[in-house]
Amino acid sequence: MKSRIYLDYNATAPLAPEVRAAMEPWLEPVPTNPGAVHQFGQAARAAVEGARAEVAAFCGGGEVIFTSGGTEADNLAITSQLGWPPSGHIVVSAIEHPAILEPAAAHAAMGVEVTAVRVDAEGRVEPSAVAAAITAETRLVSVMAANNETGTLQPVAEVALLAAERGVPVHTDAVQAAAWLDLEAHVGGAQFLSLSGHKIGGPPGIGALVVRQPATIQPGLHGGGQQLGRRPGTEPTFLQVGLAAACRRVATQRVDQAHRVAALTDDFLGRVLAATDARVTVPSAPRLPNTIHICFANCPADLLVARADLDGLAISAGSACASGVAHGSYVLAALDVPPEVRDGAVRVSLGYDTTASEIERAAALLASAVAAVRGALGHEAAAV
Amino acid sequence: MKSRIYLDYNATAPLAPEVRAAMEPWLEPVPTNPGAVHQFGQAARAAVEGARAEVAAFCGGGEVIFTSGGTEADNLAITSQLGWPPSGHIVVSAIEHPAILEPAAAHAAMGVEVTAVRVDAEGRVEPSAVAAAITAETRLVSVMAANNETGTLQPVAEVALLAAERGVPVHTDAVQAAAWLDLEAHVGGAQFLSLSGHKIGGPPGIGALVVRQPATIQPGLHGGGQQLGRRPGTEPTFLQVGLAAACRRVATQRVDQAHRVAALTDDFLGRVLAATDARVTVPSAPRLPNTIHICFANCPADLLVARADLDGLAISAGSACASGVAHGSYVLAALDVPPEVRDGAVRVSLGYDTTASEIERAAALLASAVAAVRGALGHEAAAV
Repeated sequence: MKSRIYLDYNATAPLAPEVRAAMEPWLEPVPTNPGAVHQFGQAARAAVEGARAEVAAFCGGGEVIFTSGGTEADNLAITSQLGWPPSGHIVVSAIEHPAILEPAAAHAAMGVEVTAVRVDAEGRVEPSAVAAAITAETRLVSVMAANNETGTLQPVAEVALLAAERGVPVHTDAVQAAAWLDLEAHVGGAQFLSLSGHKIGGPPGIGALVVRQPATIQPGLHGGGQQLGRRPGTEPTFLQVGLAAACRRVATQRVDQAHRVAALTDDFLGRVLAATDARVTVPSAPRLPNTIHICFANCPADLLVARADLDGLAISAGSACASGVAHGSYVLAALDVPPEVRDGAVRVSLGYDTTASEIERAAALLASAVAAVRGALGHEAAAV
Repeated sequence: MKSRIYLDYNATAPLAPEVRAAMEPWLEPVPTNPGAVHQFGQAARAAVEGARAEVAAFCGGGEVIFTSGGTEADNLAITSQLGWPPSGHIVVSAIEHPAILEPAAAHAAMGVEVTAVRVDAEGRVEPSAVAAAITAETRLVSVMAANNETGTLQPVAEVALLAAERGVPVHTDAVQAAAWLDLEAHVGGAQFLSLSGHKIGGPPGIGALVVRQPATIQPGLHGGGQQLGRRPGTEPTFLQVGLAAACRRVATQRVDQAHRVAALTDDFLGRVLAATDARVTVPSAPRLPNTIHICFANCPADLLVARADLDGLAISAGSACASGVAHGSYVLAALDVPPEVRDGAVRVSLGYDTTASEIERAAALLASAVAAVRGALGHEAAAV
């Protein structure tokens, strides 16, 4: 499959071979319920608790609540602080992932007050604006570490500092950032952090909500006593071990990879800008080293992505969560990207396996795909 | 590890080698987000939809909503019918799994009315008693297909028939039953059915809520548009493929295995009753062919399970979900099992890999463990 070029790592990263190797012993036909008291259960329990400690250390410390992924972790972060029945006020940024915005909207329908703070033209939230939105009823602030579509980094540390002055805990969705940022430095002040396995080379179906300070957690699911009752359900040993292995891999490779991939994205962008009239969505704000978001006027993204795919280049018109949905990105709308270029928005996201020769080929393929789509539609290149 | 005898299949079954084989292609380092529109995403999407169809067929038809396991499926079944904010009335049996009883209790705290219908001395609910509990406000009846501790089968088909007359949908937790019963015949009338991968030789971390009739589903998690918005979150391809493979294996082997294992449980019970004074919890009601629940007076189960484990026999003092929790089983309390024998309750549950020679050895080990525990405590065998 390597003859095809995959530049959609923000949608999912391939399972890393070293992660698979770590999971292998738990894919043997041996019973692995960490809740069982006998020796089979004890062996699984030891592996799960080891994984828990590794994930915690990777995030800069805290208590790890394993979940089925980033979506459940985000939902749990919100649910955990609103009580039962839910009440109070939460503050979010306008470009959070749907896994934050949608539960916020559902709770709003139950009477919880929700404030969505606007972002600037590059998708960055102003910490003082978040602080100003906090009221006496605020239970939680949720600001993502990095946006999944544009790659824009959020000033989470500053937000956490201001929120702490007002006694309000901060949650950060670090799902997209975890492969690239030093979490302790970048979001260390946040009390809650969401993680997803498959975005960092681990398996899908596993994630975590990391709780940095002892906090009251209202669970989202109810059932057996697993994970101190905070997240019931038989713990999936091999997935937990896989998430820990993915964290270990990132911890080892991250700094080198971030430098390497940043250079590749610069190279890609230089080539594409030389060959086309792309509009760069985040030209100056700090962003993830692997994420390129660009718009092409008069070049519908769905056609462009399909054309590139036929030519062997896998990129995305937005987040995978909204793929196939025929509407523009709410993230780009929040950034006030003009509608005429918003329709031609593509995300190109690199990964640990991306090579320089792939980037060279990909830039040429993208430029020719833009020309092909415009040609088919009878458009000329349009200055933006 | 096969020198140790594993008879705790109701806690978890080992991952079946043929399930692992089906999962292998999706453990390769290839990106697998079924939500992505490019060819990598399309390949994953095809696999996921194939898995969905297989799981549906296994359950006798319906729409499959993949979840992270049985606990989430059970929670979703309840959440799905109570609206937002939750209201109305639900009917459950008194010995449902905590994944039903606990969300029911949490909703009761929000004003939802909950009726828990009593069971008889062998743990069976009376269909007419369930029907009598239904009111004009009832949104859902939930009665499990088979109890995880005792193995008692519930008359779900009869319950579904009576509930249908009153226009109320029925959910059945078939997590423990799915490896042993013809689901279509046994619980075909239920509109909702919960399934768990790791109880039937599939991977942990995956389950399903199967919806037999088009129904309004209030989701439990909110986020991206995956699974028609009914259960957001990136779909974990290899887990879904694994669950389907486990269903395929059960469909092929179930009838033969049920006969074979029923004979083994009879053999085991005969040997244990000849050697000890065990009290059989479910002597006459229909039960799962693989599940033996017995009580020993004056023989604390935690000591008995630990003694057996040292001797190489893995059994359980109850459900794994409650392991390590120092209280008696609510299921046995609901069956009016006398407290003096309830403390010496053990569950012995067989699986597809259990052999006749293991059963012979296990019966001897259990009898000697009972004698050893009583000897250490200075108790004689007590008639019950």
